[in-house]
Amino acid sequence: MVLQAKEFRTAEHDISEVFLNRWSPRAYADTPVAEDVLNRLFEAARWAPSAGNNQPWRFIVAKTEEDLAKFHPVLMEGNLVWAKRAPVLVLVVSDNTKGSHEFDSGTAWGFLSLQAAKEGLITHPMSGIYKDVAKEAFNIPDTFDVHLAIAIGYKGDKEMLSPELQARETPSGRRPLNEIVFEGSFK
Amino acid sequence: MVLQAKEFRTAEHDISEVFLNRWSPRAYADTPVAEDVLNRLFEAARWAPSAGNNQPWRFIVAKTEEDLAKFHPVLMEGNLVWAKRAPVLVLVVSDNTKGSHEFDSGTAWGFLSLQAAKEGLITHPMSGIYKDVAKEAFNIPDTFDVHLAIAIGYKGDKEMLSPELQARETPSGRRPLNEIVFEGSFK
Repeated sequence: MVLQAKEFRTAEHDISEVFLNRWSPRAYADTPVAEDVLNRLFEAARWAPSAGNNQPWRFIVAKTEEDLAKFHPVLMEGNLVWAKRAPVLVLVVSDNTKGSHEFDSGTAWGFLSLQAAKEGLITHPMSGIYKDVAKEAFNIPDTFDVHLAIAIGYKGDKEMLSPELQARETPSGRRPLNEIVFEGSFK
Repeated sequence: MVLQAKEFRTAEHDISEVFLNRWSPRAYADTPVAEDVLNRLFEAARWAPSAGNNQPWRFIVAKTEEDLAKFHPVLMEGNLVWAKRAPVLVLVVSDNTKGSHEFDSGTAWGFLSLQAAKEGLITHPMSGIYKDVAKEAFNIPDTFDVHLAIAIGYKGDKEMLSPELQARETPSGRRPLNEIVFEGSFK
């Protein structure tokens, strides 16, 4: 089911399928994610490049009932309504004493998302979160910034979603390449 | 030659080889990068996820002699000494009016770097750049932030580097996974 994203997306140039197949569904199945599978996602993130090889990213994982309950108040209502079904939630934070820490953490999340797609997992990044709630709930020091929550799991049936969300349960498009790549000068 | 990185790196968990094989050499061969190959790198970046699908990233490409000469003063001396041999230099900038633009641009760069590794290309990200010089040289509006310069090309012989840089021409390691992944609480 996960591998159908490319049917909704057209690449202008022939790239590895994983980039098109990675998208952000909201319908999560009950199926738990095995420990070794989850470890591979973080392993991929671990090898991301960063300024001075600082590796400023940290991942806080919630997968027990207790930790998930602690995580849910971090999510804004529009995300909570569907993300509460995800078997794994992850918070991405980064060491704000390091240069480029936000940019580099985005790279690490990208690596994680692609390994997930290769595993047949779905991931959905959420910037709609209460960062202050997250800092309190997960004892995050002031030297770390909160960036993103990620829902991780297996794709479920979209009928579990509200009609409004069902209508949005397809991979999104992108700007044409000539709007993001400029030769020699910003255009 | 590019595919030997995994010999220097040990993954704790079995991930796709591309993550280990992507590293940041400094020895660039003269070989030019064909237009269609380069397009595939940006195509991969294009499909990165972003907050609200804002796609805040933009890439400014220098590959002609004239544009490369315009790019070189953007690089700090420590990078210029080797990066001036790269046949393609790219500046990553992002729309600072969009939330998470820095984080999201890091994700797009990550996607680009992996497609490059799959193509047998090498990429080297440089945060050691003069951002003000870049803004002037490439007419970047104030609503865009400059993040990163990337050298792109094919791997050359490390003997072309100074003895100091030759000694650094191997893939770097990473922190153990238990230093970046925490369950239930920041540790």
